[in-house]
Amino acid sequence: MIILGLDPGLGTTGWGVIRADGNRLSHIANGQIKTDPSMALPRRLTALYNALIDVIRTERPDGAAVEEVLGNTNAQSTLKLGQARGVVLLAAAGAGLHIGEYHPSTVKKGVVGTGGADKKQIQAMMAVLLPGAKLAGPDAADALAVAITHAHHVASAAAMARRTGVGA
Amino acid sequence: MIILGLDPGLGTTGWGVIRADGNRLSHIANGQIKTDPSMALPRRLTALYNALIDVIRTERPDGAAVEEVLGNTNAQSTLKLGQARGVVLLAAAGAGLHIGEYHPSTVKKGVVGTGGADKKQIQAMMAVLLPGAKLAGPDAADALAVAITHAHHVASAAAMARRTGVGA
Repeated sequence: MIILGLDPGLGTTGWGVIRADGNRLSHIANGQIKTDPSMALPRRLTALYNALIDVIRTERPDGAAVEEVLGNTNAQSTLKLGQARGVVLLAAAGAGLHIGEYHPSTVKKGVVGTGGADKKQIQAMMAVLLPGAKLAGPDAADALAVAITHAHHVASAAAMARRTGVGA
Repeated sequence: MIILGLDPGLGTTGWGVIRADGNRLSHIANGQIKTDPSMALPRRLTALYNALIDVIRTERPDGAAVEEVLGNTNAQSTLKLGQARGVVLLAAAGAGLHIGEYHPSTVKKGVVGTGGADKKQIQAMMAVLLPGAKLAGPDAADALAVAITHAHHVASAAAMARRTGVGA
């Protein structure tokens, strides 16, 4: 199963693609989509959408995963993030991908072992979990972490199904 | 010039189409796009996007206008609004429309005469400014108000250009 992890942002959206065979994970690709802050918002959103469609066409994932967003006290940055996230979800859904959503602390706990891990710890763990992967940056690392979380989730659900006979 | 006004929201997005010939305005169509709250977010955003693409294909506007959003203290509702707004802007930009953005108080002042006008006053003024228009609801009325604001803006800019010779 090929999984596309996404870390949406208007300025930078991280993406990461992994292959998951049961509990065996391997890195396929990762990158960061940046939009030009000097462009008007609709053009930035269009650039983000088109770049993401290109990634999906090239990598042909079977599923996608994205972090849930909590928003913060700065309404303007929450709004920017929301606009980017809407476009990212639309691109993935439009490609027919089922999208898993995971709480940030679930992602951190899953890949680092603690819900309070910071971006540097995530990057360090990606080097361990996906040896040989060259990280495009912290947002790409976060995207890979979400993809790994989704892989674990799918593997656990499959194991559970085998044990209980559900879905067998 | 045919103008599409938009009032984005995840639950309900209002839209309104007017024809503007200089200062003469006439109503063409208006409506509200609702998405099913029981559906997953990516599907809701896809439904909103597809419905809006349909409106644009049917009404063939020359330009679009949308309210600027301030966001509020509830991060989750700001995030929802942002996600819907991102998809709305993408649909309009993808259709090649130039999108004017107007501050809510500019819209209210432009159509009601006071920046603090409420939704009921906007609806009442739409009946006056666009006689014969049957309003689909308050969000459609707000969308028409944004379209009218854009029409005024375009007419003023054209008058200014004639007077100064700029753009002549």
